[in-house]
Amino acid sequence: MLIVMSNHASKEELDNVMAAIEAHGWQAKPIPGGERTAIGILRNTGPVDPAIFLGMPGVRDAIPVSKPYKLVSREMKKENTLIPLGNGSVVIGGDKLILAAGPCAVESERQAIEIARAVQKAGAVLFRAGAFKPRTSPYAFQGLGEKGLQILAHVREETGLFVVSEATDHEVCDLVEEYADIIQIGTRNMQNYRLLKRAGQARKPVLLKRGMSATIDEFFMAAEYIMSEGNDQVILCERGIRTFATHSRNTLDLNAVPYIQKESHLPVFIDPSHAAGRRDQVIPLARAGAAVGAAGLLIEVHSCPEKAMSDGPQSLLPADFERLVAELRYMNFKI
Amino acid sequence: MLIVMSNHASKEELDNVMAAIEAHGWQAKPIPGGERTAIGILRNTGPVDPAIFLGMPGVRDAIPVSKPYKLVSREMKKENTLIPLGNGSVVIGGDKLILAAGPCAVESERQAIEIARAVQKAGAVLFRAGAFKPRTSPYAFQGLGEKGLQILAHVREETGLFVVSEATDHEVCDLVEEYADIIQIGTRNMQNYRLLKRAGQARKPVLLKRGMSATIDEFFMAAEYIMSEGNDQVILCERGIRTFATHSRNTLDLNAVPYIQKESHLPVFIDPSHAAGRRDQVIPLARAGAAVGAAGLLIEVHSCPEKAMSDGPQSLLPADFERLVAELRYMNFKI
Amino acid sequence: MLIVMSNHASKEELDNVMAAIEAHGWQAKPIPGGERTAIGILRNTGPVDPAIFLGMPGVRDAIPVSKPYKLVSREMKKENTLIPLGNGSVVIGGDKLILAAGPCAVESERQAIEIARAVQKAGAVLFRAGAFKPRTSPYAFQGLGEKGLQILAHVREETGLFVVSEATDHEVCDLVEEYADIIQIGTRNMQNYRLLKRAGQARKPVLLKRGMSATIDEFFMAAEYIMSEGNDQVILCERGIRTFATHSRNTLDLNAVPYIQKESHLPVFIDPSHAAGRRDQVIPLARAGAAVGAAGLLIEVHSCPEKAMSDGPQSLLPADFERLVAELRYMNFKI
Amino acid sequence: MLIVMSNHASKEELDNVMAAIEAHGWQAKPIPGGERTAIGILRNTGPVDPAIFLGMPGVRDAIPVSKPYKLVSREMKKENTLIPLGNGSVVIGGDKLILAAGPCAVESERQAIEIARAVQKAGAVLFRAGAFKPRTSPYAFQGLGEKGLQILAHVREETGLFVVSEATDHEVCDLVEEYADIIQIGTRNMQNYRLLKRAGQARKPVLLKRGMSATIDEFFMAAEYIMSEGNDQVILCERGIRTFATHSRNTLDLNAVPYIQKESHLPVFIDPSHAAGRRDQVIPLARAGAAVGAAGLLIEVHSCPEKAMSDGPQSLLPADFERLVAELRYMNFKI
Repeated sequence: MLIVMSNHASKEELDNVMAAIEAHGWQAKPIPGGERTAIGILRNTGPVDPAIFLGMPGVRDAIPVSKPYKLVSREMKKENTLIPLGNGSVVIGGDKLILAAGPCAVESERQAIEIARAVQKAGAVLFRAGAFKPRTSPYAFQGLGEKGLQILAHVREETGLFVVSEATDHEVCDLVEEYADIIQIGTRNMQNYRLLKRAGQARKPVLLKRGMSATIDEFFMAAEYIMSEGNDQVILCERGIRTFATHSRNTLDLNAVPYIQKESHLPVFIDPSHAAGRRDQVIPLARAGAAVGAAGLLIEVHSCPEKAMSDGPQSLLPADFERLVAELRYMNFKI
Repeated sequence: MLIVMSNHASKEELDNVMAAIEAHGWQAKPIPGGERTAIGILRNTGPVDPAIFLGMPGVRDAIPVSKPYKLVSREMKKENTLIPLGNGSVVIGGDKLILAAGPCAVESERQAIEIARAVQKAGAVLFRAGAFKPRTSPYAFQGLGEKGLQILAHVREETGLFVVSEATDHEVCDLVEEYADIIQIGTRNMQNYRLLKRAGQARKPVLLKRGMSATIDEFFMAAEYIMSEGNDQVILCERGIRTFATHSRNTLDLNAVPYIQKESHLPVFIDPSHAAGRRDQVIPLARAGAAVGAAGLLIEVHSCPEKAMSDGPQSLLPADFERLVAELRYMNFKI
Repeated sequence: MLIVMSNHASKEELDNVMAAIEAHGWQAKPIPGGERTAIGILRNTGPVDPAIFLGMPGVRDAIPVSKPYKLVSREMKKENTLIPLGNGSVVIGGDKLILAAGPCAVESERQAIEIARAVQKAGAVLFRAGAFKPRTSPYAFQGLGEKGLQILAHVREETGLFVVSEATDHEVCDLVEEYADIIQIGTRNMQNYRLLKRAGQARKPVLLKRGMSATIDEFFMAAEYIMSEGNDQVILCERGIRTFATHSRNTLDLNAVPYIQKESHLPVFIDPSHAAGRRDQVIPLARAGAAVGAAGLLIEVHSCPEKAMSDGPQSLLPADFERLVAELRYMNFKI
Repeated sequence: MLIVMSNHASKEELDNVMAAIEAHGWQAKPIPGGERTAIGILRNTGPVDPAIFLGMPGVRDAIPVSKPYKLVSREMKKENTLIPLGNGSVVIGGDKLILAAGPCAVESERQAIEIARAVQKAGAVLFRAGAFKPRTSPYAFQGLGEKGLQILAHVREETGLFVVSEATDHEVCDLVEEYADIIQIGTRNMQNYRLLKRAGQARKPVLLKRGMSATIDEFFMAAEYIMSEGNDQVILCERGIRTFATHSRNTLDLNAVPYIQKESHLPVFIDPSHAAGRRDQVIPLARAGAAVGAAGLLIEVHSCPEKAMSDGPQSLLPADFERLVAELRYMNFKI
């Protein structure tokens, strides 16, 4: 933290700020400049809230210098994190572009198997589908629950696809850990700290979606919650942020990808389906997500989107997904 | 829902859209215009997702017409909801401006009682303080837990102030319901549906904070979750939204207040402390919140903000709070 | 500017950054810390762009410390700027809340005089109306031009009200300076630098509206353009920012008011009409704007909003405006 | 426009709304539903402002149905607009990905020629550089003016590259039209209507950058201003929007590309340099822009970014640009 004093600040105001810093057990280091004095804060063990100082007389600004996250940071671990699944036949964060596809929600065994076979044939190695669905409306379909997870386990047996599914709270996480290969934490739960801690105790990798209006620092801090409990297998997923734009459900923030890759060693996925919210934008955004350098794509595919119980409208048909994979191969991505 | 067809749309494309509407069990009503045809959707029981139609050939736009919420709506209940506390000595939503004040977190019995007496003397009728704290960093102080709630109960006995405290998940909600007079649901949990349902089964009023990037429709749907479980004592609280602005932690959205009052019968509170995130903006925003017509204000007050374990920087000193109340009285608010 | 080095940064990387700083003619001051080194930049005459350093090897962050504006800053001038009009019968920035009211556009002499008399009777001291209108659509009414300014001058003669009107480009500014008492620069022109410079050469005060997505620093820099040409009579006007919210045309950013008052000596007005974009939010937001501490309010009033040629929908009727002023007086504002 | 009445609305309120519609010369068409009545507005020649009705008693919502733009719309012209340059050796909107590269500002003939030869060798067909620079600070370098345009003309003679440069106001536009092959309108001028009209009278194509917080409808209306004056050679350019994100200067909105391509026949360019604001994000975002389907890329390249007079920090070095083009070729884009 750097405290910038006003050029009108009196000696007494400066002393008060230094005393406040020391009252927290930190060290205050004044840095005199031409027009004004700044004060560096040293020996703080965690992040310092700028607002502590913003209200004090004579203080003009308080500027965070160090980052609040540690385990997530590339400063802590230089090499990219690789996340092998099963016997290592699939490695997230490696050379290949990982394709995770499937319906928004498991609706029936028949539906799940049908879609799974279709996306596998096209090139997907992960099957994504929800058994527990967080829904904006209390009156909407909320998922098949444990029954849905059993269907997913059956899909894995039948196809060999690995399975990713969402845990909507810490109790549901017990079930998802039992049945799925990767535990997904959804955008609305990015700051559900109890769930994050529970996922940190799981022995399965966690796919963490960015909150709809989360800064990257907040996103990293959510991953830090998971890692601080001992689970270092975290995949970060950008899925669109909330902006003023109304031509899509959210705005896919691809600037985040090179930034995350610079700051952190964790792999990043892109979810173009939720970023778009409408089918006609999914394929172009999926191509863009691959091109920006993501480790994987998370794509909704449904064999009959118009009848899907949830989020049908943003699902690709299996034939669309096949076309997308062909385009990605044409662009020389390894799949 | 109104589907707007392209002016190039063929008869076949129009028929396909009508068939898709009827496949959902709804009724399609074509409305021919000068340049193009629109199709109204009738007999839908819940909200219709525009994206179902946005990808179909010949469709130009799909526009939601009806609102997804019911119980929350002023169409359902014309009169303002009044929420009496205790024997009715305090009524939220009535003539008086309700002042809820207190520290971010309960730190000790001594601290709590001291601040409670100070804010009560100034004019507060509700004491707000957290026993369970959702914190961005896993390394930060997370509250005293049940011990904190016991202190709050003791504050109520000593002072007669009613007590509001946050439930951070559905299990914590059991405890908060037992000890507090109002159950608070925080901004990060506005879409924690399991918690919302649990709060809907509580016999205490619920203070629901707006999510940092929630639209008012989403805010209403969160309240609908609570009300659909049988609890109609809901207070909505605007606490600042996330925008591009960096001169404050959040941007207080006062436009929301007249809009909510038009659309819903539920009372609205304003939390200027979290909207500002820095002490020097709290008093002006609190005055603005009262002036825009809020039913109450939620204000952080700490006797020693520089030593507070959390959110000290945005807390007023008791003397600041007294000054604020004097200013509100000067502006002729009934307190 | 403070350059924060990565904790992996080599000596060579540090030296390169220091050399780059010195190549700009600035002074580099290394500040060793526990984990990493930071480098302060001194002797820069203007603002330094952080991006100069963000791409360099070994650099983790580049943090601006000093502010880019000077003349606007309260550090340059401690006392509030007062702007007297005419013989000083009206002083902007003084004790009284200044009410500026009138129609969006001048439509006819009869309309202008009728509205002017109504708002004057209620308590307005400034008449606001556009003669040159920037319109989103090329097919919309664009104002009466010079004829409209002549009508405004006539309104002043008839009523004694001072007149404020918008200059849409540097040439139009010549005309507005001739006829009006205050030159308004609209939100879309906040960064029209040629117009800002022209307004800086005018001998009339300038009312500068904040751009729809301008940070306060950018807003201040726009005012700095005007002041750097010699005109220190600048009124800043907050009129709502663009956010994800859709329940109002814009989101009125009242957090900006205490921030501006802390950082700058210039008076701030609030325009609740454009922030709302719909009549039913104007009065509550106007009260909030007064309560937050604005020096004045800019309010659209039209005697027949449903027939107004532009922006009728957000205009108050004269009777509404009268009611607003009564409410403000009840809240003890001096008008 | 569709007016949705409240389910409490009285017969009288309904009649008042119908009368208001007809008072504007439009036709009102009531559409009775189960719970409430809606009223369609027909025969309006331009867009209808919803706010006209939002304040009226009994009105719950007012929903725009038709789009305000015409000439820009794909409904008006089904085929993609192609923009040939010179003798047609370069065609914007055709099969090839157009690369426009060059420094932010022309600094000297030597600098311009050096960079032009480098980007041409790598694959660029357009040279972009500013002679008139809109700068946030009045104290910053504002460009070489006409001298800069003369240098650009010389670059064209020497290299055969076509030249694009920014017109900062309607008078500057005369000069840019004379010297350049494409007239650029910058983000801050997207709603400078006088400049748009002037560009609409030019005989050269116009590259129109999206405003920092412009919706696509507003972006289209700006293009409509140009086209309504007779110039149908318009290139739209997405360059990042303002959001809450701070890890990049702006957030590149790639969702806009498929949306624009669906709604309009005009070609779209991507400017990753301004969207990033920092060099280390430019190459990944450029790849993403190509992959999403843009017709061209606008990229800042400088031979010595650390000494560039403006925007150096986001410029690629010529070697970086070469690497980017190699990556694009590897992805099978035709250049």
